[in-house]
Amino acid sequence: MSTAQLLSNILLCLSLIFQCSFAVSPFGKIVPRFPSALIHPEMAAMGPMRPGYFTQVLDHFGFRPEGYQTFQQRYLINSTFWGGPWRNAPILWFAQNTGFMFEMAPCFNALLVFIEHRFYGKSIPFGGNKEVASSNSSTLGYLSSTQALADYATQITDLKKNWTAEDSPVVVFGGSYGGILFIENAAMPAAWFRLKYPHIAIGALSSSSPVLNFDNISSPYSFNDIITRGFRSESKNCCKVIKRSWNSMDAGYLQGWLQTALVYTAMTDYPTPSNFLSPLPAYPVKRMCKAIDDPSKEDDDFAKLYATASIYYNYSGGVSCFDLMDNSDSRGLGRRGWKYNYNHNYTCTSDSIVIPSPTWIPIAFGGHDIRRTLRRFGSNIIFFNGLRDPWSGGGVLKSISKSIVAIVAKKVTFNRRKLSMMGAHHADLLYSTNEDPKWLQDVRKKEIKIISSWISRYYRDLAKSSSQFRFSNS
Amino acid sequence: MSTAQLLSNILLCLSLIFQCSFAVSPFGKIVPRFPSALIHPEMAAMGPMRPGYFTQVLDHFGFRPEGYQTFQQRYLINSTFWGGPWRNAPILWFAQNTGFMFEMAPCFNALLVFIEHRFYGKSIPFGGNKEVASSNSSTLGYLSSTQALADYATQITDLKKNWTAEDSPVVVFGGSYGGILFIENAAMPAAWFRLKYPHIAIGALSSSSPVLNFDNISSPYSFNDIITRGFRSESKNCCKVIKRSWNSMDAGYLQGWLQTALVYTAMTDYPTPSNFLSPLPAYPVKRMCKAIDDPSKEDDDFAKLYATASIYYNYSGGVSCFDLMDNSDSRGLGRRGWKYNYNHNYTCTSDSIVIPSPTWIPIAFGGHDIRRTLRRFGSNIIFFNGLRDPWSGGGVLKSISKSIVAIVAKKVTFNRRKLSMMGAHHADLLYSTNEDPKWLQDVRKKEIKIISSWISRYYRDLAKSSSQFRFSNS
Repeated sequence: MSTAQLLSNILLCLSLIFQCSFAVSPFGKIVPRFPSALIHPEMAAMGPMRPGYFTQVLDHFGFRPEGYQTFQQRYLINSTFWGGPWRNAPILWFAQNTGFMFEMAPCFNALLVFIEHRFYGKSIPFGGNKEVASSNSSTLGYLSSTQALADYATQITDLKKNWTAEDSPVVVFGGSYGGILFIENAAMPAAWFRLKYPHIAIGALSSSSPVLNFDNISSPYSFNDIITRGFRSESKNCCKVIKRSWNSMDAGYLQGWLQTALVYTAMTDYPTPSNFLSPLPAYPVKRMCKAIDDPSKEDDDFAKLYATASIYYNYSGGVSCFDLMDNSDSRGLGRRGWKYNYNHNYTCTSDSIVIPSPTWIPIAFGGHDIRRTLRRFGSNIIFFNGLRDPWSGGGVLKSISKSIVAIVAKKVTFNRRKLSMMGAHHADLLYSTNEDPKWLQDVRKKEIKIISSWISRYYRDLAKSSSQFRFSNS
Repeated sequence: MSTAQLLSNILLCLSLIFQCSFAVSPFGKIVPRFPSALIHPEMAAMGPMRPGYFTQVLDHFGFRPEGYQTFQQRYLINSTFWGGPWRNAPILWFAQNTGFMFEMAPCFNALLVFIEHRFYGKSIPFGGNKEVASSNSSTLGYLSSTQALADYATQITDLKKNWTAEDSPVVVFGGSYGGILFIENAAMPAAWFRLKYPHIAIGALSSSSPVLNFDNISSPYSFNDIITRGFRSESKNCCKVIKRSWNSMDAGYLQGWLQTALVYTAMTDYPTPSNFLSPLPAYPVKRMCKAIDDPSKEDDDFAKLYATASIYYNYSGGVSCFDLMDNSDSRGLGRRGWKYNYNHNYTCTSDSIVIPSPTWIPIAFGGHDIRRTLRRFGSNIIFFNGLRDPWSGGGVLKSISKSIVAIVAKKVTFNRRKLSMMGAHHADLLYSTNEDPKWLQDVRKKEIKIISSWISRYYRDLAKSSSQFRFSNS
């Protein structure tokens, strides 16, 4: 690439970023009100996310013949705004669904890629047979975070070759554990990918990923503490009624059912209506507390809690009867999967057929003394956390170095009331809406600015390496 | 640790380093003449390397019940000079045998640890049964570089806990592929460990590791080119005779037998007598060329080449007959294993029962554009290469950043003759001797200085994190 081309690229990119980051979204009216669906129908304006299948190796780390089995791994691609390989235009790759990335595509002239996690959706090994794949531990054992990272590395490398985009920078986006909470060891924070495969992704936006939620690195009480604080911030009485209710309920399905509603609502306490785990109004925790504080219900705790749970389970109003034993939800998360992760960060005895390995994650990915380890190692990672999100207790909340940056949504004045904490689970990754509060707009602007600086620097390095580094070693 | 303690540590360390790096070796007369045996008998002065066994998981990445099998992995420990956990004294850990590390122990008050690679020596899975472990690909498939790195990570973490040395910095040393050349995908450059497990090793000395010898990242011709240049630098006629001989021999055992002698001698063309792959005199390539240039042999090429090969196969003079079909050597390298790696960097069809995976290494560890990737990522790695070493063609020969440093032994004046290249296979890691040339002494001094700076900085960070970072995230 010539210097002129490079400069024109950077200028184009900068102008688009300027336009985008100050307009918040380039889509104006078509920005949907409800965030975060895999392919939001309204994003059809961008053209389709075209699906494809990649023949993936089952076992990247052993060289047994059974590991050489392959399976079909689904990906989705959108090239509407891609600047093309001749300009080394960037590739934004998300392991989790994110609306924010769609909105960024025109800013960066980027190719959008989604790669489905093995054992989910249509990416089922063993001939696509879900029953075989999950029936016993010999097959389900191939579901692990390390194998999944290797899948991504393999597929992204192949994709870049196929699109003759070897020199295009890849930025990876990941929020939470997303749909992969269900199975132990299947977590995929984008940060881990950047740390393990720096030659494949130039940077990572890791949103609400509890990378420190292992091996008691962070307090095992933080999760519940944050939920409690969230409800208490709305109303002290609300918190008191909920606390009181635990004693009046038998530990069992009813308690679990209510707990799920409270925990998931705290996680998705977004400032706008949302449909991530369940359809919810804006500020659903506030709504729940209003239901509890409702003076018409007097001292009827059951009526209060029923109304509260109904906000999570039946906000759309279409449900006439609740199945307390229902373990499923639309993403396969369910109470069983939840329990799996919830109790003391992987040290609980598992009721799954896959044996948990609580010590492996910190050995493989670190976490203890993460600040000291990464202070002089690694670069180009953003950790976003919202402090209303119970998972933020296991998040990286302080910047580690100039290029490993924590963005935390906290203390802002809103509606004339000072809130000590803001921001729910990967709020930044959701589609923007016209009702987004300023702090959320600011978070996204900051993220775009940082990602833009990674890409610009990459192009500068690429230009240098073309003229200076290449072949210099031979 | 108090500031006073810390300062006293640093001062002690610095004074020892000063003493060591300018004395080259603290062992004076006991320094052995012959380098590089796993436990050199003369190092008994340091006290024994105490052996132990660690119960290791067979499969770190899958969670199948068969992967939960364990095996006994051998380690060796020497704590003669260790400063102890109360001073967070460092741990020097070597994946390959190295005399240099022994000599460094008193400089750093370091604990020495050797961990045997799975499937080698006494660290055989499947009940220690070598035949079962290597008989078929279902068992041998657990021999891979990624599994080996995970073994080390697991065992070092456990060792630090057991010695209450969680805050002791670990520096990893690795030379070449060492004894692990035999099996595809079993390479273990220390650099890879540092890059993948930065939270476990604060730095790595990666000596003569051909990390770029994959996927045609470096020229596939470099290996033979460097051997040719090495012989030509001694005598043009020597080179000519060898070249001529290829035509007069049938491709087959005789050619392979001679080739092995030439290649291994080029690799171990040390400035002092050595016993790495075979007992050899100082500057053995020069000796070989002298045998070829011997005027008494006139035009008898066979006699010349026989004398040449005898230097490699029979320098000690005890062999009366050569078995050309002998695939074994003292380290299990052999011609078959050699062939496996030698032909075009892992792209050849394998005759082994383990299927090679030529594309995996660059996907897992990078290599393409390594300068651009690591320029702003990672830290604390030394790449040493000697330019007489044929493997140096796949080595990192230029520094990448301030803390990812290449040390190359090249162009020095020696014996009034200008040599364009110096340094054989991980020459720096061998025991020092009184006959070491100045360039080699300088290389070791430089390495000690750099490693010392890593450890000092680690202690400074540790002191800061004790007072500032710890608990700051909760």
